[in-house]
Amino acid sequence: MSQIAFVLGPGFTALDVVGPYELLRLMPDTEVRFVSHEPGPVPTDSGVLSLVASHSFADTPSPDIVLVPAMLPDSPRVDKIVDWLRQVHETTQWTTSVCGGAVLLAMAGILTGHPATTHWIAQPMLAEFGAEPQPDKRVVRSGKIVTAAGVSAGLDLALWLVGELHGPERAQVIQLMAEYDPQPPFDSGHVSKASPRVLELATAEMQRLYGSAVGSRE
Amino acid sequence: MSQIAFVLGPGFTALDVVGPYELLRLMPDTEVRFVSHEPGPVPTDSGVLSLVASHSFADTPSPDIVLVPAMLPDSPRVDKIVDWLRQVHETTQWTTSVCGGAVLLAMAGILTGHPATTHWIAQPMLAEFGAEPQPDKRVVRSGKIVTAAGVSAGLDLALWLVGELHGPERAQVIQLMAEYDPQPPFDSGHVSKASPRVLELATAEMQRLYGSAVGSRE
Repeated sequence: MSQIAFVLGPGFTALDVVGPYELLRLMPDTEVRFVSHEPGPVPTDSGVLSLVASHSFADTPSPDIVLVPAMLPDSPRVDKIVDWLRQVHETTQWTTSVCGGAVLLAMAGILTGHPATTHWIAQPMLAEFGAEPQPDKRVVRSGKIVTAAGVSAGLDLALWLVGELHGPERAQVIQLMAEYDPQPPFDSGHVSKASPRVLELATAEMQRLYGSAVGSRE
Repeated sequence: MSQIAFVLGPGFTALDVVGPYELLRLMPDTEVRFVSHEPGPVPTDSGVLSLVASHSFADTPSPDIVLVPAMLPDSPRVDKIVDWLRQVHETTQWTTSVCGGAVLLAMAGILTGHPATTHWIAQPMLAEFGAEPQPDKRVVRSGKIVTAAGVSAGLDLALWLVGELHGPERAQVIQLMAEYDPQPPFDSGHVSKASPRVLELATAEMQRLYGSAVGSRE
């Protein structure tokens, strides 16, 4: 039985967690759990939605797979999460992040010298912590560390991981179960595809929502 | 201010709700809420993850937009949800579903005579309730009703809806904020793309997980 710990931290982004969970939970012989400081509801960045942590960090000393979503990195509660990540990384099979979750791995020293990716607006923060940002890659693997780009990229990370762990046929079965056959009606999901005006508006909106927690592209 | 009600029903599928929420919440002048029989945690189909309802159905008599995810249609708690859907549909601006959520709309009589889609395994149930299944479409609009295919299709529905409500530029901004530039590492997310073996395994697994609640393709 393989144990997957999804980290629920202060002001985390729900889809960073729920996208990968919805695919990874369908793997055979897998226990998924949602970990936080203590069991109970943890509010997301919207302030409206909460997900319920099933376990505490103390109850989860050695997950096989850990997945870290974006959260508010300047919250005082983050220190404990960073310490826990540093500790569990020693024995994980895979250490993974989605979106700004890579910033927490970087704060834990886990990404030092490693290629990695994150949300486009947070790429400069990875470099500050000694990682090697790969802003044009959606999923980056370096040894047992796998990082994904922003928010929705966790679906691609998870499907890739199913293929690594259980082979391509099982990954295809899970892809079909989740009907993951994306057909976005617009095509501006990457900085390289968005117009300058769309990039400017998105940057302003990210900074309005997340303030000093996200880097500036100016 | 536009109010969006995401329905949390018995054994619902988390990504059906969280995918659309993560895009729709970024629209201007929008209130999102999570509704159930009463406020508090509602377990998903995995039994491990719960999301917290912020409001009751009684507190939410006239949402502008309603979104219904897949849930267990034979649960006794579904009757009340179907009644509430029938009532609020009279005044909604948009009535939407993801995955098996269309079955609840059909049970409420809302889809009678309408083209609609749902998870591939539930398409026969739509026909039983007098809807016109469109198994090859990812998002189907009929008047103010919009239905999406399985699980991950809610992201495409939501992005389309942002474009309808706030125009293509705002949809592109939100697409970039969520970095929705999907790059699945396999290509079997639709029945027409999966091998016969993958379809057989996925059908067996869906029936093992959801039992008589889902139709058979045999």
